[in-house]
Amino acid sequence: MDAMGKVNDLLNAESILKWDARTMMPPGGAVTRGKQVSTLAVLARDLLVSDDTRRKLDAAAREMAAKPEDAVEQVMIAQARAAIDYHLAIPASLLQRRTELGSIGQVVWAKARAENDFASFAPILEQTVALNREMAEVIGYSEHPYDALMFRFEPGETVATLKTLFGRLREALLPLVRAIGEKPEPRFDFLRRHYPIDRQHQFALKMAETVGYDLNRGRLDTTVHPFEVSFTRNDVRITTRFNPTYMPASLFGALHEAGHGLYEQGVDDAYTRTPFATDLVGLYAVGGVSFGAHESQSRLWENHVGRARAFWNIHFATAQEFYPEQLGDVTAEEFYRAINRCKPGFIRVEADELTYDFHVMLRTDIEAALIDGSLKVKDLPEAWNAKIKEYLGLDVPNDTLGVLQDVHWSSGQIGTFCNYTIGNVMAGQLFETASRDPVIAEGLSSGNYDPLRAFMVEHVHQHGRRYSRDTLLVKATGRPLDPEPYIAHLTRKYSELYEL
Amino acid sequence: MDAMGKVNDLLNAESILKWDARTMMPPGGAVTRGKQVSTLAVLARDLLVSDDTRRKLDAAAREMAAKPEDAVEQVMIAQARAAIDYHLAIPASLLQRRTELGSIGQVVWAKARAENDFASFAPILEQTVALNREMAEVIGYSEHPYDALMFRFEPGETVATLKTLFGRLREALLPLVRAIGEKPEPRFDFLRRHYPIDRQHQFALKMAETVGYDLNRGRLDTTVHPFEVSFTRNDVRITTRFNPTYMPASLFGALHEAGHGLYEQGVDDAYTRTPFATDLVGLYAVGGVSFGAHESQSRLWENHVGRARAFWNIHFATAQEFYPEQLGDVTAEEFYRAINRCKPGFIRVEADELTYDFHVMLRTDIEAALIDGSLKVKDLPEAWNAKIKEYLGLDVPNDTLGVLQDVHWSSGQIGTFCNYTIGNVMAGQLFETASRDPVIAEGLSSGNYDPLRAFMVEHVHQHGRRYSRDTLLVKATGRPLDPEPYIAHLTRKYSELYEL
Repeated sequence: MDAMGKVNDLLNAESILKWDARTMMPPGGAVTRGKQVSTLAVLARDLLVSDDTRRKLDAAAREMAAKPEDAVEQVMIAQARAAIDYHLAIPASLLQRRTELGSIGQVVWAKARAENDFASFAPILEQTVALNREMAEVIGYSEHPYDALMFRFEPGETVATLKTLFGRLREALLPLVRAIGEKPEPRFDFLRRHYPIDRQHQFALKMAETVGYDLNRGRLDTTVHPFEVSFTRNDVRITTRFNPTYMPASLFGALHEAGHGLYEQGVDDAYTRTPFATDLVGLYAVGGVSFGAHESQSRLWENHVGRARAFWNIHFATAQEFYPEQLGDVTAEEFYRAINRCKPGFIRVEADELTYDFHVMLRTDIEAALIDGSLKVKDLPEAWNAKIKEYLGLDVPNDTLGVLQDVHWSSGQIGTFCNYTIGNVMAGQLFETASRDPVIAEGLSSGNYDPLRAFMVEHVHQHGRRYSRDTLLVKATGRPLDPEPYIAHLTRKYSELYEL
Repeated sequence: MDAMGKVNDLLNAESILKWDARTMMPPGGAVTRGKQVSTLAVLARDLLVSDDTRRKLDAAAREMAAKPEDAVEQVMIAQARAAIDYHLAIPASLLQRRTELGSIGQVVWAKARAENDFASFAPILEQTVALNREMAEVIGYSEHPYDALMFRFEPGETVATLKTLFGRLREALLPLVRAIGEKPEPRFDFLRRHYPIDRQHQFALKMAETVGYDLNRGRLDTTVHPFEVSFTRNDVRITTRFNPTYMPASLFGALHEAGHGLYEQGVDDAYTRTPFATDLVGLYAVGGVSFGAHESQSRLWENHVGRARAFWNIHFATAQEFYPEQLGDVTAEEFYRAINRCKPGFIRVEADELTYDFHVMLRTDIEAALIDGSLKVKDLPEAWNAKIKEYLGLDVPNDTLGVLQDVHWSSGQIGTFCNYTIGNVMAGQLFETASRDPVIAEGLSSGNYDPLRAFMVEHVHQHGRRYSRDTLLVKATGRPLDPEPYIAHLTRKYSELYEL
């Protein structure tokens, strides 16, 4: 499987070049860097689907034929072959058109957003929808073309499964959001005090280390949008953003990305440079099995651990040491309530734990409707604003704060939004099972996160991409994706916080 | 020539991965990074020598047949074909053995150097010599096998040409070194005061910008050994080292690397991603035409500009602003004399401008003698120590300060040392011609380095790898490599400094 190792190397190299472009590269380097990234991406794909690789896979399959179907080698070979079929089904001309559309799209979108001019972005979006419909046809699907587009990010998820899931979430969570709207807000003035950026960096890093992020195989940098990226399990980097007058942005950004980082750092070393540490369909060097599974780990450490009362009962003293002036007149309980303030807003990436999913559901439903033709691009702002009104009770004042806010569609990409909510649901399910273990529960109240992390390593991280997301969930919790633990968590937490 | 663009992209990606490994990578990432780098290096070579690339070159050659032999396209094709022949002559097994020897060698060498144990490194060095002799045979040469090994770094240079050059340098410079040994030392205590590292970083960067290093296409980082590396002319990075009690290390490290950086930043943009910005023989994405030519630019800006009295007559006031406590009781003249102190020592990388070449000549002569068999590895320490005594009048106390000091041989590499002295000589020659121009001379005394840089861009930088080093020199100065201007510069400078 040396060819798979080389594909992994190329994709990791591509990731390094992209990380560097976002963190270190001087501005003049952008254009030639784009060419370097593109050359690596094309070479990785070409190497994967090459006759030589396919011959080697055939030979390996013959050699391994006696092994059971679920043997590591058999699963790797099957995954590689399935990915090759996926790529060979997509004509090069279609990929080329998407790349071209993406590079124009980002420029047009940035201008449209700045100028609140949806009409100028609409033609790009129409082409994006048409192109993704073509893409869905060549990839194939049973029921809904949008299923084919989600496959790359959340294999197995369909419009039908999401309809059930989203219905249940809306039913359970909308009453909570509405009830909170009637309640007084907690104190949160102290979060908006001046927090020096170098202190924020040190504190965010300390909290990331506290939950187990390994700095011998990691580092924290600064970017406009926080992200995590790994170049094998041995080099897993995170970034966060720093706002001198809003400290939670850097803190929870770092905890979120550290959660992603723990997943990658925990993949079995034996899977390094194999298909179990390479998304051969998405052509991305990653050990997490789906975008949703990945998000489950970031949301678990950010929300279930980092926004819990138990966490701040222990670590608020450290926060006060870092910020004696800013937090001197604040109690741990006030801090806990402030970082969990629920406040419906227009912007997804600024949403609180409870309202976040509504932003996601609205986008996913809209994407599916665009793809099956039941919604037209020209009617999109109206549909968007109606949903924001329905879910969050807000009147969207302009498209910049509405339909133009996300970068995703401008890159020619459709099908990625559901992962965020699946991650939340999966986090709730895993956390419920894990915290039933008294050792883990005791660790959470005493500030020892090793037992919880060990649970995640055992049931999620170490397996890399070996099992599907739902197989992982069945093995870890006894059942596939189930929203009830997540709903119970939010209901319990917010009922208590807002005395509902 | 799209294939050449891809080779350049891969080699640039390899450079980015190596830069990252030295500046940013967490320690845990080393092993898998090694595999990623190796995969890129192998793919770049394979792509260059592939049947497909050769067919494309043949087709391009037919298309361009009507153009004159020195047309850009013809030269590019000829260079690519020559590089392919070079690589195809070297058996894969030989490359493999050198890689393996290099990875063992570095470990054995580091231990031997730490423990002052030449005997434990000798077997590695014997294998390195034998392997390089094999390498010389397959590459081919007319007179001396060492010529074949220098080809990759300094095409056209031979043992015969170096014999003449080194003889003349020794004859002219040894009397200077000896005469200075009889003279009193200048004051230099203030260079050893405490200089905070963040101030050093700012000052070094300011001086690099002063000579024209473009930060829109560059950045300065910290490493143990300073270096420059480019990822096309649009992203040219430098590093320096910081010693809190020896400020010149960071300052002249940065000026030296900025000199390298100016070369790469000055290559014609039309040559980006072409053979004129790619060392296809050395498989390294670089615009400089030889290692010696590159060194001429670093030494020119470090020594002819940065260690000149005129430079500090202007910029010493800035130095005092940065370091009011450290330099408050110092004059510009004292500073100038201190940074030009001549003091024979054991370590090449710490040598002053005048004694540096003796370290280089000694290594080059020893390498040539090892390769032709006239010197045996076991006799190496004795030969080394005898030369240090002869040239610098010093008794080498141990091999750690002698024959074990350089990393070069441990990586399986022989043939790279002469570049340093060729760079010095070439810098002297170019500087003499340039500074005859009254506008350039006026700029040097008034602190405007644009005219000198414009000369270098016109005569050296912009051409990238289009012309050979000596063709460049003939075009710029009217003659090929000539040590007399360099000798005149050192004689004038040191005679005045030490009242010889």
